[in-house]
Amino acid sequence: MAQNIPHDRQNDYTLAQAQARRAFIHQLRHLELNHLAAFSFSPEVLPGNIENFIGVAQVPIGLAGPLWVRGQAAQGEFFVPLATTEGTLVASYSRGMKLCHQAGGIMSTVIDEAMQRAPLFVFENARYAQDFGEWVSTHFEAIKAQAESTTQTGKLKNIEQYAAGKMRWLRFNFQTGDAAGQNMVTKATHKACFWMIAQGLQGLEHFTLAANFDTDKKHSHLNTLQTRGKRVVAEITLPAELVQSVLHTRPEALHYQRQLSNAGAFLSGSVNNGSHFANALAAIFIATGQDVANVAESSAGLVHGEITSRGDYYFSVTIPSLIVATYGGGTGLPTQRECLEIMDCYGPGKALKLAEIVAATVLCGELSLSAAIVANEWVASHEQYGRNRP
Amino acid sequence: MAQNIPHDRQNDYTLAQAQARRAFIHQLRHLELNHLAAFSFSPEVLPGNIENFIGVAQVPIGLAGPLWVRGQAAQGEFFVPLATTEGTLVASYSRGMKLCHQAGGIMSTVIDEAMQRAPLFVFENARYAQDFGEWVSTHFEAIKAQAESTTQTGKLKNIEQYAAGKMRWLRFNFQTGDAAGQNMVTKATHKACFWMIAQGLQGLEHFTLAANFDTDKKHSHLNTLQTRGKRVVAEITLPAELVQSVLHTRPEALHYQRQLSNAGAFLSGSVNNGSHFANALAAIFIATGQDVANVAESSAGLVHGEITSRGDYYFSVTIPSLIVATYGGGTGLPTQRECLEIMDCYGPGKALKLAEIVAATVLCGELSLSAAIVANEWVASHEQYGRNRP
Amino acid sequence: MAQNIPHDRQNDYTLAQAQARRAFIHQLRHLELNHLAAFSFSPEVLPGNIENFIGVAQVPIGLAGPLWVRGQAAQGEFFVPLATTEGTLVASYSRGMKLCHQAGGIMSTVIDEAMQRAPLFVFENARYAQDFGEWVSTHFEAIKAQAESTTQTGKLKNIEQYAAGKMRWLRFNFQTGDAAGQNMVTKATHKACFWMIAQGLQGLEHFTLAANFDTDKKHSHLNTLQTRGKRVVAEITLPAELVQSVLHTRPEALHYQRQLSNAGAFLSGSVNNGSHFANALAAIFIATGQDVANVAESSAGLVHGEITSRGDYYFSVTIPSLIVATYGGGTGLPTQRECLEIMDCYGPGKALKLAEIVAATVLCGELSLSAAIVANEWVASHEQYGRNRP
Amino acid sequence: MAQNIPHDRQNDYTLAQAQARRAFIHQLRHLELNHLAAFSFSPEVLPGNIENFIGVAQVPIGLAGPLWVRGQAAQGEFFVPLATTEGTLVASYSRGMKLCHQAGGIMSTVIDEAMQRAPLFVFENARYAQDFGEWVSTHFEAIKAQAESTTQTGKLKNIEQYAAGKMRWLRFNFQTGDAAGQNMVTKATHKACFWMIAQGLQGLEHFTLAANFDTDKKHSHLNTLQTRGKRVVAEITLPAELVQSVLHTRPEALHYQRQLSNAGAFLSGSVNNGSHFANALAAIFIATGQDVANVAESSAGLVHGEITSRGDYYFSVTIPSLIVATYGGGTGLPTQRECLEIMDCYGPGKALKLAEIVAATVLCGELSLSAAIVANEWVASHEQYGRNRP
Repeated sequence: MAQNIPHDRQNDYTLAQAQARRAFIHQLRHLELNHLAAFSFSPEVLPGNIENFIGVAQVPIGLAGPLWVRGQAAQGEFFVPLATTEGTLVASYSRGMKLCHQAGGIMSTVIDEAMQRAPLFVFENARYAQDFGEWVSTHFEAIKAQAESTTQTGKLKNIEQYAAGKMRWLRFNFQTGDAAGQNMVTKATHKACFWMIAQGLQGLEHFTLAANFDTDKKHSHLNTLQTRGKRVVAEITLPAELVQSVLHTRPEALHYQRQLSNAGAFLSGSVNNGSHFANALAAIFIATGQDVANVAESSAGLVHGEITSRGDYYFSVTIPSLIVATYGGGTGLPTQRECLEIMDCYGPGKALKLAEIVAATVLCGELSLSAAIVANEWVASHEQYGRNRP
Repeated sequence: MAQNIPHDRQNDYTLAQAQARRAFIHQLRHLELNHLAAFSFSPEVLPGNIENFIGVAQVPIGLAGPLWVRGQAAQGEFFVPLATTEGTLVASYSRGMKLCHQAGGIMSTVIDEAMQRAPLFVFENARYAQDFGEWVSTHFEAIKAQAESTTQTGKLKNIEQYAAGKMRWLRFNFQTGDAAGQNMVTKATHKACFWMIAQGLQGLEHFTLAANFDTDKKHSHLNTLQTRGKRVVAEITLPAELVQSVLHTRPEALHYQRQLSNAGAFLSGSVNNGSHFANALAAIFIATGQDVANVAESSAGLVHGEITSRGDYYFSVTIPSLIVATYGGGTGLPTQRECLEIMDCYGPGKALKLAEIVAATVLCGELSLSAAIVANEWVASHEQYGRNRP
Repeated sequence: MAQNIPHDRQNDYTLAQAQARRAFIHQLRHLELNHLAAFSFSPEVLPGNIENFIGVAQVPIGLAGPLWVRGQAAQGEFFVPLATTEGTLVASYSRGMKLCHQAGGIMSTVIDEAMQRAPLFVFENARYAQDFGEWVSTHFEAIKAQAESTTQTGKLKNIEQYAAGKMRWLRFNFQTGDAAGQNMVTKATHKACFWMIAQGLQGLEHFTLAANFDTDKKHSHLNTLQTRGKRVVAEITLPAELVQSVLHTRPEALHYQRQLSNAGAFLSGSVNNGSHFANALAAIFIATGQDVANVAESSAGLVHGEITSRGDYYFSVTIPSLIVATYGGGTGLPTQRECLEIMDCYGPGKALKLAEIVAATVLCGELSLSAAIVANEWVASHEQYGRNRP
Repeated sequence: MAQNIPHDRQNDYTLAQAQARRAFIHQLRHLELNHLAAFSFSPEVLPGNIENFIGVAQVPIGLAGPLWVRGQAAQGEFFVPLATTEGTLVASYSRGMKLCHQAGGIMSTVIDEAMQRAPLFVFENARYAQDFGEWVSTHFEAIKAQAESTTQTGKLKNIEQYAAGKMRWLRFNFQTGDAAGQNMVTKATHKACFWMIAQGLQGLEHFTLAANFDTDKKHSHLNTLQTRGKRVVAEITLPAELVQSVLHTRPEALHYQRQLSNAGAFLSGSVNNGSHFANALAAIFIATGQDVANVAESSAGLVHGEITSRGDYYFSVTIPSLIVATYGGGTGLPTQRECLEIMDCYGPGKALKLAEIVAATVLCGELSLSAAIVANEWVASHEQYGRNRP
């Protein structure tokens, strides 16, 4: 018979409650949860972030840098906190950062941004759905007003429409400032939709606020094409001699490996032709209080390299759906805020800056790992740093 | 001019080194990193998990449960630690667990397992590549012996072959026991490949240990088809009256929403027709010391529901590429081990059990969120629990 | 040593030339090509359609119908010429047409249309590319004027932008009237691009008129999302008793098969969750002088079915990239024109009508084949009609 | 009220019946169908290929060549009949053939072959499905015997298994000799499945012979990975000076365009990173009596190019799902047979040869069109040859 967790989902947050829940586990499983209990803050900071709080995961953080970013918002040198338990990772990113520093820094640019909610309207038939589509286009300003009435910072940029059968998905694209904004856009879209429905939509059979057209917490090709969160590009041109001295290989060898990786990604049906964007993303997301489940979407991407006419190596990464915030969510929790502050990325007005730093970091990891594979150092470096990894 | 991190990537781990690095940041950015510094263990446990250690991220953990799993390895009730900063998440999973408990528990089954490394051999032309393919088939036992000579626990199950142009990818599938095994298979495959090359492969032009056919740290359709890590199914049949009393909706309404979500996922090109597998995965991965970057691959999946002849609701989730370990990596770190122990999943012999618990948890979250969308409770519940989320 | 075809690629078209080429084959391979030679028209009609003409393929045409279409452009009963060598095909489509006739006809609707050319502009870096993107947005009217100066009927609707790294693809969407329009849009886009380039685009490194963002003659997910050619929906509600009497099955059985086919399509990574759109498309395309290579793109699609509250079966097909013309290309050749005229679809002003008929035909084939699979008649019917098929 | 086609779907084939059906259209639409009626054979040849026969589509055929193939089955020079109404097409393929002839011919190789039917077995839960999977593996020989009892030429190579939820798809891979074999494999699989079911499969709830895991008449990523029909590679190394003299461009320019096209294909979600495989396929399929609907599957592919150390251009095309036959289906019809005979590809023992010729032709078209785009001749050549194309 089931025993229940004490104070199950009650919305007050005290040390006593956390302790009671750990005691429950202690009784049940005869475990001391001393490390979980060793947090350095009062549970009063937690409402809105967790329910049934019992303690904290302590995830080790390594510092990588200096990362030289020549962004539009992020300019100068940054030290990047990476929370991971995977040996080699911090060392590998550091190596890439060193290389890129010697090459004069990384240009990083947010080229688009949008956060979505994509409600679905189902009609009696495709013609009503089509009429509705036209109605939405002509009533955009009114819909926008409804949506924006629920938020101080969110702005409705446009509404994409996707249609099949008698279904019409509206993909509301918002600018959400420095919050990731998934909840903000949900609320705004909800309001706008119920206003639309209240106008009397002819032939409407069914409405749902979500039916896999955003697509939150999972990759979709749609998001790679149309952006979710920030669309960021980081790029650099590496002098051939640096490739040799730091990465122990030549631009031509890196570029040939790129061709093969492109072919592999295309054939295997991968959502990223690069190596391991997800490593940097997960490590920064954990450190800085991002919604780590968004690694699912943010890990898609495109790597593009070229040998320049001088024989140097132009290299770029594009992250089409990078979801980061510097405000709200977990960003204000104690260690998370400290990590954001290390990069001067805490609070309003910093989201583009953080996005540029993240993309630059991703680029460094791509260069470092590709070069390791090409130079056949890969197995060796894991031997050296990754002892714990079977 | 760049300043460097003190003790940059030195392989000894002391409090003094961590302190020196924090002091470096303090000097640079005038920040106290008191919370980062508040870890409860000696840095001596860290080699193999991190470089340039400065402290820890404290990620709040909520406890969800009891989760009733009727698995092959996991049997009985479990309390699941979820490390997240996203409000509503623990409450939502708990609601799903309550429902599934009342329905008699969740059948969870690991139906396949394999960890890969996929080296690429490039030949002068397609015919040499084809000959090589045949050679590999006939020399499988010798290749297997080479690969397995590098590991105590890894077993080479088979080698898939994929071909295009003059390229041939070999996808080495290993059974890796209770480790995730990415490094183990890298080493084993590396050994086997260099043995093959030493035999004199006619027409071989180029070899690389990786070219996007595994595909590590990113989703690929290949992995959805052919499994990476564990392939796990969790399933349940919910009596109609429970759907009504706990989820406040009817099986028919859930099933219709499923149809629409299926259409949306297909059209948007999503890698998962469900709602948010990634939430459970990221939260458990962080809590239990998994490689969180693997959320990229593990978040793909298939949801399948049916109305039974009695009007009940059969519901299942399939995770084709779930990468979890109960040994190695970050699993032995202090809080991570405690979290594994809460579920009796620490150490050798527990990986299948953990996989079954994870899949059952994912199922609970799918039911809970789908029902919230259908019952139009979604916006409201975020209002209540997710105050911090803009 | 190579022998060359007589009159190789000369641009005059006479019986003597065709005869000389056949004689060349006769001499080389001792073949009489009597059937190839048995065409019923003068080669003078051929310029613009073929080079090195030697004769014709005679592809048998079967007539299916009456097809009752309740379209916006196509209204009433149609007989559809299907050119195929696959036994059972005409019989199967006819069965579906009979069913749909008894059910009161098929609603068919063109819900979007656009033909594309997607040139690529490569810049020195992502920032120049971004600036260019903004320049294009603000200069749309001027670009449109340039593009439209090359065509009487083509209208530039909008320009989508897609970006990665330092690359920016512009996807020019044209309305092309009753021509398929691939060449029209190529010419118009070419003109517009060279005008843009002449304005002096800062940081431009490279330009190419095509780099796989249209995507002509191959399926892409982009085209499924954003339409290429016509986006057409055909839909019907079948009374349960008709499903029983004509298809020998029940709506519930059809609908369950649909669920399974949806799961299969999603997992296998198919571009169409239906059964065989391509059969109708290829047969009509050959009969009516369409560019048959466009079966590659046009064969993608979505099928969506529902059981209505009365227990009837709502069923729809969506073809997102149907490329058809009633003017230009092969539509004016003798048999091709006759086939278009059978459906009153020859010449200007008929393209939407033809698109609606095609989609309705596709729907009939989906219903017929699905039902055959469900009723286990599939193997039997091929036994009866498809004797030639091994 | 509906009028019916005379002799609707009767299985005898006479001139009088065809005439009666044309007369029916004549009466209905006042059309003379003289060209449709101008076929050169007796309708008695048609059973198994068409129902409701009314006449033939006359599709113009142009001859391209000489194509120099250095295949395993196809060796020497071939002239290839291309049935199309798209101006420029024959000229463009001819240009590519000329280039490749001067370069010493095209190596073409069938590297795999398999034709599938993929039945689906649905069980009460995933565990029964898993047990069934093991049962299938251990009973392969018996299943094979059942399947092969229905065919003289088909051989069951293996059975792939794909699993999700309680569903298990078996993908039966057959070698089908010189027939495309879709019907052969359907019959054989049907027999094998009913034998399996008769053994009493524990927990079996449902069976269907097809649920989108083959995937017939539509592209799937599965087929690109695992082959459907023939998997063929054509490859060549072009001396730099030939690229200059015939294609008016340089290997580096072709190769750079290839990089951009690769990026475009990856981002747009295309199933082929080449230019227009489908043009050659559709034209040869129509001319030689193939099932033209298979252009849907056959048009997927991979192009891979490299600059060699001498500065020449290595170029290859891979067609993973090329479905061609030299026997059965439409291959024996009068003009279709003549076209096969032009290439000495009619009848048993010729399917690999035809596949090699097709792939070599596809390669020529890729080179020619890519070069035209690079050399900016594309618009101009359509102006010259494609006058009819709007």
